[in-house]
Amino acid sequence: MKKLINAAESLVDDALTGMAAAHPGLRVRDRVVLRAEGPRPGKVGLVSGGGSGHEPLHAGFVGYGMLDAACPGEVFTSPVPDQVMEATRAVDGGAGVLHVVKNYTGDVLNFEMAAELCDDVTVASVLVEDDVAVQDSLYTAGRRGTGATVFVEKIAGALAEEGAPLAEVARVAEETGRRSRSFGIALTSCTTPAAGRPTFDLPAGEVELGIGIHGEPGRTRAPFAPARELAAVAMDAIHGDLPLEGDLLVMVNGMGGTPLLELYVVFAEVEAYARGKGARVARSLVGNYVTSLDMQGFSVTVCRLDDELTRLWDAPVETPALRWGR
Amino acid sequence: MKKLINAAESLVDDALTGMAAAHPGLRVRDRVVLRAEGPRPGKVGLVSGGGSGHEPLHAGFVGYGMLDAACPGEVFTSPVPDQVMEATRAVDGGAGVLHVVKNYTGDVLNFEMAAELCDDVTVASVLVEDDVAVQDSLYTAGRRGTGATVFVEKIAGALAEEGAPLAEVARVAEETGRRSRSFGIALTSCTTPAAGRPTFDLPAGEVELGIGIHGEPGRTRAPFAPARELAAVAMDAIHGDLPLEGDLLVMVNGMGGTPLLELYVVFAEVEAYARGKGARVARSLVGNYVTSLDMQGFSVTVCRLDDELTRLWDAPVETPALRWGR
Repeated sequence: MKKLINAAESLVDDALTGMAAAHPGLRVRDRVVLRAEGPRPGKVGLVSGGGSGHEPLHAGFVGYGMLDAACPGEVFTSPVPDQVMEATRAVDGGAGVLHVVKNYTGDVLNFEMAAELCDDVTVASVLVEDDVAVQDSLYTAGRRGTGATVFVEKIAGALAEEGAPLAEVARVAEETGRRSRSFGIALTSCTTPAAGRPTFDLPAGEVELGIGIHGEPGRTRAPFAPARELAAVAMDAIHGDLPLEGDLLVMVNGMGGTPLLELYVVFAEVEAYARGKGARVARSLVGNYVTSLDMQGFSVTVCRLDDELTRLWDAPVETPALRWGR
Repeated sequence: MKKLINAAESLVDDALTGMAAAHPGLRVRDRVVLRAEGPRPGKVGLVSGGGSGHEPLHAGFVGYGMLDAACPGEVFTSPVPDQVMEATRAVDGGAGVLHVVKNYTGDVLNFEMAAELCDDVTVASVLVEDDVAVQDSLYTAGRRGTGATVFVEKIAGALAEEGAPLAEVARVAEETGRRSRSFGIALTSCTTPAAGRPTFDLPAGEVELGIGIHGEPGRTRAPFAPARELAAVAMDAIHGDLPLEGDLLVMVNGMGGTPLLELYVVFAEVEAYARGKGARVARSLVGNYVTSLDMQGFSVTVCRLDDELTRLWDAPVETPALRWGR
């Protein structure tokens, strides 16, 4: 295993040092990534977090129009309640704080505990559980939270930026999650620096359908197939759960080790599939947004837009990983 | 080899179909990627291109404030003169066209031939040759053109957008190249879809110092080492060629298969190195900008800024891969 690290133990701190140096708009304090300018009085604060190894999620989404703070845990490990408490207090501008939590048992417990302990701050919470692949999984009761997190953070972040109250920001976050579904496919395993070997074995001629973002198992193994067929497997799973119709926001997300050239091939297939169902890809992202270290593979996330969500998606955003229109 | 493709032969066209579908601001015509809105009368047009497999370079840099057109060749293969001619004619707004050419023999020849054949358009050309690793290489006489291409396209693109004449745009492009240096290190080989196997063998405990972006050899093999030491090798090579001083624009670029988390670790080391030499990293990019398919590794590109280059770097840009400030 060759990794660009100094040591597995210092990886997250070293990376955060780099992140702070690269992005003057961010401030890093005790493993919490904050907007440098601090909380705006009267604005709802948005806090998310989770294990490291999924970059740019979440710290790459801290900034104007999206998150106020991110709490990175160790690689594939939930942040501790202290981090979440510190972030929650740091971003509170008096209007309360929304926690955006991916559905993994450790994340759910630690965010809940932090919310309870922050009894001086009004906290609401939205659970993202968009992955249609499996009902329960290695680290999760219920559906896993994956790509829809990006949509929830962007759309709720835009509404918070406009000065909406906490209940409204939480409502639009829930609504975004309710309208979103994801499915992922792995071509290779990831390798965590601490373990130093692939998380799972995947034979040369096989793929894992419904992979989780920590390499946890999906629905089944299947023979490797052309992009068109793999995209159809993902889209069938999504369409079977929430029929594609109307205007869609679609993300074709790389798992970290897949060339962008290939992600565009997948996007072409996904777009054609949606069109074939009579839906329209009205907005899209193609690239690495919710990664699994060096895994090769992709996930598709689809959100059925309405006018409100479209408007909030289009609103200005200025973060390391998403930036437009300001 | 598992690749997200339908077939190696259709890879580039399939990816361009996806790109056109994902980015309404782009138009794809006969393997030329153009701004959808067409040429602006009186504005110098910028055309670049090269082999595919380096995405987002170049097509991801087509848009306001950067390129007017990109000509993608087959994977790791130069675009043909016909593509470059079509692009050159398509973007000419009457003020002439600048070709931004990475120094690879095939690219140089084909862009030269296209420029000669477009005798109805005034064409200037800038050669990017920033890679300090080797003097001559597998596909190149002289220094290879790599990461500085991003800087040249951004900075010259900004000046063209302001309406500067061709000679001025060419001058600032040359100046940006003259002030820029790069060095890359590979942890693994890339695998081209057509070959179906790694381009070169790199043992588990070794890295390739001075790797080219097609997997062509660098200076030497060396034992794998911590990020701090690998970053120092790259920075020593750059500093030894063009001493670091004043304000720097620095890109820590992933080769396509390296997690963003690790790139931030490298950036932290690069920033500390520059500071140790008394220079300041005033602007930066961290991410995948000039890739080599699925290769793991990184390159560093440094440009010594002056006031003009800083202003043009900061100017608004709106492309798939770089976007700010408009």
